[in-house]
This record gives sequence, C-alpha cells and structure tokens, in this order.
Amino acid sequence: MTQYKIPVLPGDGIGPEIIAEGRKVIDAVGERFGFDVEWIEYPHGADHYLETGELISEETLKELSDYPAIYLGSIGDPRIAPGILEKGILLTARFYFDQYVNLRPIKLLDGVWTPLKDKTSKDIDFVVVRENTEDFYVGIGGRAKKGESKDLLEVKRTLYSAKFGLDIETDSEEIGYQIGLISKEGTKRVIEYAFDLAENRKKHVSSVDKANVLSDIYGLWREEFSAVSAKHPGFTTDFNFVDAITMWFVKNPEWFDVVVTPNMFGDIITDLGAMIQGGLGLAPGGNINPNGTSMFEPIHGSAPKYKGLNKVNPIATIWAGAMLIEQLGEKEAADTIVSAIQRNILDSNVKTYDMGGRSSTSDVGDDITRIIKGE
Amino acid sequence: MTQYKIPVLPGDGIGPEIIAEGRKVIDAVGERFGFDVEWIEYPHGADHYLETGELISEETLKELSDYPAIYLGSIGDPRIAPGILEKGILLTARFYFDQYVNLRPIKLLDGVWTPLKDKTSKDIDFVVVRENTEDFYVGIGGRAKKGESKDLLEVKRTLYSAKFGLDIETDSEEIGYQIGLISKEGTKRVIEYAFDLAENRKKHVSSVDKANVLSDIYGLWREEFSAVSAKHPGFTTDFNFVDAITMWFVKNPEWFDVVVTPNMFGDIITDLGAMIQGGLGLAPGGNINPNGTSMFEPIHGSAPKYKGLNKVNPIATIWAGAMLIEQLGEKEAADTIVSAIQRNILDSNVKTYDMGGRSSTSDVGDDITRIIKGE
Ligand SMILES: CC(C)[C@H](C(=O)O)[C@@H](O)C(=O)O
Ligand SMILES: CC(C)[C@H](C(=O)O)[C@@H](O)C(=O)O
Repeated sequence: MTQYKIPVLPGDGIGPEIIAEGRKVIDAVGERFGFDVEWIEYPHGADHYLETGELISEETLKELSDYPAIYLGSIGDPRIAPGILEKGILLTARFYFDQYVNLRPIKLLDGVWTPLKDKTSKDIDFVVVRENTEDFYVGIGGRAKKGESKDLLEVKRTLYSAKFGLDIETDSEEIGYQIGLISKEGTKRVIEYAFDLAENRKKHVSSVDKANVLSDIYGLWREEFSAVSAKHPGFTTDFNFVDAITMWFVKNPEWFDVVVTPNMFGDIITDLGAMIQGGLGLAPGGNINPNGTSMFEPIHGSAPKYKGLNKVNPIATIWAGAMLIEQLGEKEAADTIVSAIQRNILDSNVKTYDMGGRSSTSDVGDDITRIIKGE
Repeated sequence: MTQYKIPVLPGDGIGPEIIAEGRKVIDAVGERFGFDVEWIEYPHGADHYLETGELISEETLKELSDYPAIYLGSIGDPRIAPGILEKGILLTARFYFDQYVNLRPIKLLDGVWTPLKDKTSKDIDFVVVRENTEDFYVGIGGRAKKGESKDLLEVKRTLYSAKFGLDIETDSEEIGYQIGLISKEGTKRVIEYAFDLAENRKKHVSSVDKANVLSDIYGLWREEFSAVSAKHPGFTTDFNFVDAITMWFVKNPEWFDVVVTPNMFGDIITDLGAMIQGGLGLAPGGNINPNGTSMFEPIHGSAPKYKGLNKVNPIATIWAGAMLIEQLGEKEAADTIVSAIQRNILDSNVKTYDMGGRSSTSDVGDDITRIIKGE
C-alpha cells in the first residue's frame, strides 16, 4: 500500500469544515485505489497569528518543503487588516516554494447553474494557467511625500511624462506607487507549462496582456509567448488584451482551451471564470511547482460569516483535493473524485444552499464519499 | 441660436462611418433644441501618422484645449504596432487635457440582449467612474538586463523580497518592469466626482482596488475613499477587490449604483460592463475634465475588418454624442438622443447585425434622426 504524507493547513473561517470533507474524500478514494494518507496538521492562520504573532516561519516553510503537495483551506479573518494573512501565509508560500503555476480549471459541470445564457458544459471547459510568482505580486512599492519621490523613481520616463513634463516629484503632496516585474525565465517557464498542457487538449493557447499600455512589462511577456509559440508548430494561439478577454469569457467561453496570463490579470479573470463555472463554491486551484512543493486550495475565501455553520459548499475543496492527488501521480483516483462530484450534482439531492439545495457541508462530503465507495 | 464649435477626430477603421452618424444625430437634435454645431475636423490617426510621422503635436493639443469637448471616433490600425497610436493619440489626449474622469454608463436598454440570465434593464443600470490619468497608465517602466536593474529599482523591498532575499538584480537575464502611481489629490478628485454623481442617483458608491496585495498604491486609494466617504454621511459604500467585482458584475449587477475605480482596473471592468449591457456596439464613454477639455468616444476599437462596409453599430458613438452635448449643458437634447436610441431599439426593425438585424450603420443613424425629428 502506497503511503503519502500530506501537510494540511485548514486555515481560517470555514477552512476547517471544508478541509474535513476534502480529507474524507481523499481517504475514501485511497481505500479504493490502494493508498493511504497520513495528514500532518498545521495551525497557521488568524488564531495562530493572534496567539503567537507568527504568520508562517521560515522554519515551518523549510519543513513543508519536504513534501510534494500541501492541502490548504482558506486564509483571512475580519479581525485582521486585509493583506496581512493573505500575504503573510498564502503569498509567502507561493513565493517560497516557487509555485510558478497557478492552475485553474474553468469547467462547468453538467447540472450546474451558470449565470450565462445559452451555455452548457460543452461551452465552458478550459484551463487558466496563471503565473504565480512575479508581476505586481512581488510586493515592491511604497509611499512618497512631496519632493521625496525623485530618489525613489529615478527611472526613465516614457511618453506622456517625458513629453509633457508630468512632474511626479512636485505635483503631489503624497503618492503611492507599486512596481511590477517579470523576468524572461519566469515568463518562459509558465508559458511552456501552458503549451505542455494544451498538448493533451485542443492545442490552442491564448495569451493575456495589456501590452498596448503597460508596454514595458508586457512587451517582454509577448516576446516570450511568441518565442515559445514558434517552437510549437501544431498549435494555434492568440493574443488578448485583458479588458477584451473578460468580454469573451462571458460571450464566447467556448473559444478557449488553455489561457496563460500574468499573475495579476490571472487573479481577476479566474474569479470571473469561477463565476461562469457556477460560482466560487465550485472553483478549485493549484499552486504548482512541478519539481517542488505544490499547494492546492479552493479559490474562495474564508467566508467568516458562515464559520461553524456546516453550510458552505465543500466541492471546490474536494475538487482541489483531486488536483492534489493527481499531482502525486494518482490520476485515476483523481478522475474518480471528479466523476463522483459530477454524479453527486446530477443524481442526488444532496446539495448546499448555493446550488439550490438544503444539505450541509458534511452531507455533501458524505454523499461524494458514498459514491466513491460504490455504496 | 446657440453656436457650438466641436472638434472631431474620426480616427481609424470604422471611425469615420460611426462619427458621421453621431454628427447627423447631434445636428438633428440641435435643430430641435435651438443650437447649431460647427464641426472642426482633425485628420489624426493611422493614415496621418504614416503620411506625416505625426501622432498628435503639442501645437494641435494646445489648439484643441480652446474647446470644452472633442468628439472622437476610434483609434488603431493593424499596420502599426499595438500601443503606438493608442498611446500617441488617445492616452496623450487624456493626459494632456487632464481628463481625470472616464465616465462609463453601464445601462442595459430595454430590448437589448444581454449574455446574463434573468437580468433586465432594471438590474443593469449603474455608472463606472474610472480614474483616467494615473495608476499604471503613467507610462513609466523599462527593461533591465542582469546586474543593471539595481540602479533602476533602488526602492525598498517589502515582504517576500526582504524576507526571502528575492534577488531581482541577479536572478534574471532580463526583466521588464512597470511602475504605477497614484497621488492623494488625483485620487481624491475622482472619488469626489463619483460621490457627486451618486448624489443624484441612489447614493451608493462602490470602490474597487486590490489593497490586499498591491497595498502600497491601493492603500492610499482606500484611505482617500474613506476620507471622502466620511464627508458624505447619507451615502452607503463598499470596498470591492477587483477580482471579486468581476463576479458581482455578472451575478448581481443590480447591487451597483456608482463604481469608482483606479485606471487599469477600470479599463478591465468597463469592458466587462460593456458586454453585460449588450456589447461594445452599445457602450459609450466620456473622458472628462469638468473645468477643461473633455472628449467623448465609443469604447470599442476601430474594427479594421469592417472598415468601409457600413455595417457596424453606430449606437455607442451616438450615445457618446449625447454625453458630449450634456457636458456642453444641453441636458434635454442629450436625453432626447438616448430616448431616440431606446425607441429605435424597441420600435423599429432598423438594427445592425450585432443586434440581430440587417440594417447598415447609416440606416440606424437615419432612423434615430427620424425619431428625433418626430417624422
Ligand atoms: C487572497 C489573495 C491574496 C489571492 C490572490 O490575489 O492571489 C486570491 O485572490 C487568489 O486568487 O488566490
Ligand atoms: C485603447 C486603450 C489604450 C484604451 C485603454 O486601455 O484605456 C481602451 O481600452 C479604453 O478602455 O479606452
């Protein structure tokens, strides 16, 4: 019997409830496919932070880097200012483990309600590959007062600024600024990942950028996309401005197969993607380092007001669990989980409120487990 | 009889065709409401650039600054690399005239098809106030090779970079970077504009940011929003992360009244907004400097493949014309145009292909003109 050790961070709010269902389902599928999981619990999140002052230490991160995959619930708490926990735990892990791919299947399952007219599961079935370690997520920025910013922004000015003498230093009492950066290698590796993924799909890769305005950063992105694309003669590709792609997600989702996007735009368009596939209760995500430690999570937040109510939909988390075990090499078991989710939705009345049902979080986990066990 | 002089830049692609209809309609409404327009044509766009090398000169901009409002068709041409014309003309004008408000009504007219289920004109009726002169549109950025970037990025590192020694200077052969900045005053004025607008609506103002990750730049945004909000006791407000708001636009557009957003996020969410109100053929925009020179345009592009075919929908441009004359003080005439658009959609079969009809661009302009004249 194969043995896996999987670190699990249930996190905040509804995190523990949904993670419990995810574990239940993975344990069940393990029984059927001959593997056994030892779950190693970590307490990180709001309570732990408020008690100890620790977000996540480098020691813990080092320890976690022994494992190929981490299972994460959700992070965030109203007692703590926005950003502290998200950056201190979630983004820190993404960066520390160099999880350069954020993988988000946008797949409308049969029987799920989508807000879009005239679209079925045949129309909404693509994957977003979001770059996950660069761009505007690098955390470089600051504030500057009148006269101060010159030192900070000693950079060449382009177009308007040069032409019309836009004077950042002296015009304003106070500015806030933020710097995004992408590297050639960082861009190349995520685009290559997207092409590899498309190899086993429809071989169509769509790039997202805003190179007509943020030309410096996304000019490099386009160059790399073109370079990788040139090495894949059998593939079709297209460039999309981020503003336009939000329209096509809503109007023509059937156009997409694999979409590769810089980090921040990826954050935006995958939430939109989650909505067209039926909402956050159904949207899983993986933070992947193919040669290191990956991390799987529902893409929704910690929904503090539902905490402890046994009410929210565990499907996103269960689906993220399927992605996790697929990453461990258990492809068949992973497919079995996704099929069981699909069967639960189509054949049973056990559904949470967001899907029009009245069942609890654990009822749904139990039902999916029952389907897997063939009871 | 009141006399207006309106500079008009038809621009590229379908620009001249749609602008012709917009002028026709404004002329008609002028006859009815007692004003007369002298149109002053400017040739700027792709052809002019290819012939003369000029995008738009400071001399021309100075000349244009004598007028309160400019009518713009669309800019962009496949012969020219993305960004050159858009930045060289459109964004240059927005910055030069300090048009700090980009105003975009998201209004589903009766009888218009929306991709969203179960939503009618009652549900989709809000306004986006997009900041239009700052943020990631300031055009500051560049490329750096290995070892070079240290000089350029002499800025304090936050979180991950400081903590884990993310080494921008030496890790990469080549990086592209982009700097966004907002000022206290620039943020304040646009948020105040949004509250003023909400005064005559439902007094609900929604803010958009990503302060949980891009904390330096959007932390300042939040502070200013809170400060302006504190001065408006009768109003309700909320903060939205940009990723989440794309979901609510699709799921619950009826939640919104006035949405105020930094520039780049505004670019993205207004395209999504255009789609839910029926598509780009129906989405107008105004670039507004309340005390200077404003500029009105359809928010769609130049659609080069439709050029000269008399096929595309002129409604966005006609609607932008209504916003233009409203800015000139002709509120009743402006309302008359919007009502005529609504009558055309509801009562006549004269519709372009995107609305399921077979009529031409000029047929639609003629029909709206006919309605205005009461023929
Ligand atoms: C919580 C937040 C920091 C995070 C992000 O912006 O990446 C989330 O929105 C996501 O998409 O995983
Ligand atoms: C054409 C482009 C530069 C422009 C922008 O990004 O602002 C457009 O998308 C818009 O929204 O007006």
